[in-house]
Amino acid sequence: MIRPIWFEAGRLYLIDQTRLPRERVILEIQSVAQMVEAISQLRVRGAPAIGIAGAYGCMLAAREAAGNTERIKELCMQLREARPTAVNLAWAVDRVTQAINIVSHGQWEPVATREARTIHQMEEAACEAMSNHGASLIREGGRYLTHCNAGPLATGGLGSALGVFLAAKMQGLNFEVLVDETRPLLQGARLTSLELIEAGIPCRLIADSMAAFAMKRLGVDGVFIGADRIAANGDTANKIGSYSLALAAREHGVPFHVVAPSSTIDTECPDGTAIPIEERPAEELLGFGETCWTPTGLHVWNPAFDVVPADWIETVITERGLLKAPLKAAIERIFA
Amino acid sequence: MIRPIWFEAGRLYLIDQTRLPRERVILEIQSVAQMVEAISQLRVRGAPAIGIAGAYGCMLAAREAAGNTERIKELCMQLREARPTAVNLAWAVDRVTQAINIVSHGQWEPVATREARTIHQMEEAACEAMSNHGASLIREGGRYLTHCNAGPLATGGLGSALGVFLAAKMQGLNFEVLVDETRPLLQGARLTSLELIEAGIPCRLIADSMAAFAMKRLGVDGVFIGADRIAANGDTANKIGSYSLALAAREHGVPFHVVAPSSTIDTECPDGTAIPIEERPAEELLGFGETCWTPTGLHVWNPAFDVVPADWIETVITERGLLKAPLKAAIERIFA
Repeated sequence: MIRPIWFEAGRLYLIDQTRLPRERVILEIQSVAQMVEAISQLRVRGAPAIGIAGAYGCMLAAREAAGNTERIKELCMQLREARPTAVNLAWAVDRVTQAINIVSHGQWEPVATREARTIHQMEEAACEAMSNHGASLIREGGRYLTHCNAGPLATGGLGSALGVFLAAKMQGLNFEVLVDETRPLLQGARLTSLELIEAGIPCRLIADSMAAFAMKRLGVDGVFIGADRIAANGDTANKIGSYSLALAAREHGVPFHVVAPSSTIDTECPDGTAIPIEERPAEELLGFGETCWTPTGLHVWNPAFDVVPADWIETVITERGLLKAPLKAAIERIFA
Repeated sequence: MIRPIWFEAGRLYLIDQTRLPRERVILEIQSVAQMVEAISQLRVRGAPAIGIAGAYGCMLAAREAAGNTERIKELCMQLREARPTAVNLAWAVDRVTQAINIVSHGQWEPVATREARTIHQMEEAACEAMSNHGASLIREGGRYLTHCNAGPLATGGLGSALGVFLAAKMQGLNFEVLVDETRPLLQGARLTSLELIEAGIPCRLIADSMAAFAMKRLGVDGVFIGADRIAANGDTANKIGSYSLALAAREHGVPFHVVAPSSTIDTECPDGTAIPIEERPAEELLGFGETCWTPTGLHVWNPAFDVVPADWIETVITERGLLKAPLKAAIERIFA
């Protein structure tokens, strides 16, 4: 299992996910600026994983600020705003910041470190719990579909959507996974496929535009995706393409499941219209990596996320169990 | 306007569309084997254009067979089967073969040449007519969406779906086109964007998975696509992703239009289930061109086409005018 981030002997490491699967480049992160760059460039990505990265980033901020209250606020704000859509990043940074706020300057770094480790462990535990809850929805011989990457690399644990498959495999179930390649950054083609192959789970890559036709032609027993932010009513922001996929699932009577730790639920956000949608640089769509295949002067529209309406979601699987429709009431119950 | 194929001073040329837009490589096609390779490798592509290519291929077959009846049958069959989904290829090859069949050996090549030129001119005229018919559906200030490439490069004339935009632009209308990049071979990103930029039509590239969200978030006034084969009931085979796009259009109340010459209608084919769907090599999905971004050992599902149900189509625009629902009856009328 490839880890996205680890803290060992006082040093913080990331695997550069933009270089996977062809190269395994390990980065040592020594400054807040480096962490902000890594998050915004998607060297570390996946809502739970960027939460963990943000938390460790606050530890670096505590070190760099050297007791300057204004400076630490600034640095933590830079981390918090490195990406706008996933709520886990803001949640984790706020949690560490609050822990720092109540201690004296000399305690900032050890308190931040302890809090970041706690968040990391909580996310790992949440992954394991939600993966096991979700595995109850996998049947022997079934065919499932996933989008983007919601596995170990995205979470720091077993994964969310992909964790469900890994847990089901560990329980001895046999099934197939169709993997959306997930343009433009190809997290499905590069990362999810890698994690499924390493786990020995049979899988086939498809283009994103094939998902609806796969449901019609091959048959699909369920869709599992992760989430970047779940509003209080259950509307779910996730990687661009999730909206289209949920529509196809509804049309074909395919159950659509969202797998996410409860740290992804933003009770302050009433519904999907209040979730900020990050638009990313044109270059991502003009080619991939060093290759550009488009004519000069081409404009793009490149939203990184979209929002799946709560009504189209059959289950939200969290570490606290399965939330069923109506999601608004189910979410209210777990936060009561 | 870049032409896909031309016959000049007794020589037959193709532009290698797999190298566009970054390189403009002209191929002189001198043998049936070369033409079969060019069609199956998508150096020439687009249903009407491969019909034209197949027809000129028969001219080369007439030359190569040198009076051998068995040999010309074989060669024409190789051309006819170079790609299975678009009916235009079979239609054009059959038309030239029938013309050859009724003349003596010495007449094969001139008859085939004349017939190929006629088919080419007919397709050009059909493009112009259907483009003008379709332009009546474009409104000033509108936003439209297209998938794959159905412009001059795909047709040998003004284009089918893209021809509608070109004709509307020539009529002085201002509007925007969203272009699906069209994985895996990126005909939208590479070819449609090039043709729109050259025509001075404002356009933005999107990933295929963004189309549904674009309809919801930006608003789209209509979708225009080409077709590879239209069954007698109106079910339409077109580039993979068309099915998903039509579903999104239906959900958002966006009119969905198919633009194709009547040579694309296969009255022998009762409905979409009878249309053969080409599955293409895994390599297309594992990366693009020389670049491979996937882990070793990954399997894929790579259908090149899918089928849009007739019920989801508002208009089929042919050179003979607009066919409206119910499409089966409208198709029967034009072939009566």
